[in-house]
Amino acid sequence: MQAKTRKDYAIGIDIGGTNTVFGMVDHRGDIRYRGAISTRKHDTIEPYIEELHEALLPAIEHVGGIQNVRGIGVGAPNGNYYNGTIEYAPNLRFQGIIPLANLMEKKFGLPTALTNDANAAAVGEMMYGVAVGMKDFIMITLGTGVGSGIVANGQLIYGHDGFAGELGHTITIPGGRFHPGTGAHGSLEAYASATGVTRTAHEFLDKDPSKESLLRAYPREDIDSRIVYDCAMKGDAISGDIFRYTGEILGMALANFVMFSSPEAIVLFGGLTKAGDLLLKPTKASMEKNLLPIFQNKVKLVFSELKEADAAILGASALVWELKKD
Amino acid sequence: MQAKTRKDYAIGIDIGGTNTVFGMVDHRGDIRYRGAISTRKHDTIEPYIEELHEALLPAIEHVGGIQNVRGIGVGAPNGNYYNGTIEYAPNLRFQGIIPLANLMEKKFGLPTALTNDANAAAVGEMMYGVAVGMKDFIMITLGTGVGSGIVANGQLIYGHDGFAGELGHTITIPGGRFHPGTGAHGSLEAYASATGVTRTAHEFLDKDPSKESLLRAYPREDIDSRIVYDCAMKGDAISGDIFRYTGEILGMALANFVMFSSPEAIVLFGGLTKAGDLLLKPTKASMEKNLLPIFQNKVKLVFSELKEADAAILGASALVWELKKD
Repeated sequence: MQAKTRKDYAIGIDIGGTNTVFGMVDHRGDIRYRGAISTRKHDTIEPYIEELHEALLPAIEHVGGIQNVRGIGVGAPNGNYYNGTIEYAPNLRFQGIIPLANLMEKKFGLPTALTNDANAAAVGEMMYGVAVGMKDFIMITLGTGVGSGIVANGQLIYGHDGFAGELGHTITIPGGRFHPGTGAHGSLEAYASATGVTRTAHEFLDKDPSKESLLRAYPREDIDSRIVYDCAMKGDAISGDIFRYTGEILGMALANFVMFSSPEAIVLFGGLTKAGDLLLKPTKASMEKNLLPIFQNKVKLVFSELKEADAAILGASALVWELKKD
Repeated sequence: MQAKTRKDYAIGIDIGGTNTVFGMVDHRGDIRYRGAISTRKHDTIEPYIEELHEALLPAIEHVGGIQNVRGIGVGAPNGNYYNGTIEYAPNLRFQGIIPLANLMEKKFGLPTALTNDANAAAVGEMMYGVAVGMKDFIMITLGTGVGSGIVANGQLIYGHDGFAGELGHTITIPGGRFHPGTGAHGSLEAYASATGVTRTAHEFLDKDPSKESLLRAYPREDIDSRIVYDCAMKGDAISGDIFRYTGEILGMALANFVMFSSPEAIVLFGGLTKAGDLLLKPTKASMEKNLLPIFQNKVKLVFSELKEADAAILGASALVWELKKD
């Protein structure tokens, strides 16, 4: 056998609103080198890519040079798999339609695949997480917002235009809470995100101002899902109610998703999952209650076991192994 | 070239709650022979299959004998593609889990594929209807109930257990109308079906008993979607409101489905579509209003152009061409 060029590494990049984290990942899903840069520092895409390139050079060096790297996978908000573009991402400073994959290919000389951040996380779960071996599952990311990645028949569902899986924006409570980012009323994200939990806390505290709560010891603007969690764990009644309410709405939405694609599992991921059973139990109960009997007690509702930063890097890097170009 | 057995025909069967219709279909989607038997006549499956076999014999004769028939495709309520079973179909007299494909194979000596009726209609649209060439679309059947078939990445979505696509049972108005068949409150089917339109008519007439309406000329129990349509076309205000209300709720549900799988089109099918623009216009307006901007003005909302009886037969027969066994 002749020696041949090995391309055993893939770069995974997760572009978040605040930070961009990246890793050099091997075939087994081990992250061999990690790094991060600020996403917010640049107004335009070119200097951002310039800085990302600089930051990645040591990672490329670490695995013996660019000839050992097969490509780049990127997860980004509003990332479009078909076009390799980021389109009108509300939480990024880069405006309009950004041909990111194209720009990356030019800068790095490596084939680049792009998808949205929740899709990348779903791929990460499918290749290295709790969804290994599953052909039908839904990934729900519960962070500042609510994202989703849907796998059916063993494939990510991208839809006709590459934007499938915006489950956080489905209308769950018609005429409900206003979502300032989208203008929608009653979308899931207005309730089942970290931001949603904070809003629920404010609503519940205001609704019954005379009711005692540990939450009242905190300045109103400081109350977040972590504080609600801490208070609930100390037995605070309102804090417990906040998670029950969140779980009820989330569970109803999940039931609707199950009746759409009948997944083997729903994988919950992101900051809000730190609430553990406080969130999981009411969510599961509400999901089962709202399911048609043929779907009841079939769907696993589980938390991701991947480290939050890792899932997106791993998932993004996994896109590389599916790249047709080489 | 040697002569070989031609298997150019497929039997398509649509099992409805009242009637079972069938056709002998050629490769081009022409139905060469049609027939029907009652579904309700038999309590158990064996005599039903016996009668179906009798009824199909002339169809098989018509195409020159069973050696020219490749197989049988069946669309049935709660039909499970993976197992070939009908499971707990509420509107059939056959109880429990019926191993229909297996029983058919034994009786006819032909490979048999089974799926639910809405999935069969979706396949019919994909092969011979308005969805030809589409890889991502959703079929919604608006009849006595609301059924659905979802195609993504060019494939029907069956889900983990074969029951994906029960969109009629998704909760659209939490805490809304009770559905006597499922026990759910506020599912789409309670509003956007023929039954739902009748209920809306009763509600609207009761809400404002002094308001004049052409509908009041009919005995209450006679009012159905056709009568509401006729009255609306004559300019009756309440009748128009009934379709607007139905369209608003249906459109919101469709927006949620779009944010799930981002289809190229939604194909509406079934009795309620006879209302034409009376239903289509408010549905479209409500769908667009509830969509996230990146999805707006992209999704075609169209009526099926297949004859209602034909779509299910064609779709069921089309399953045969995908059968692996021969």
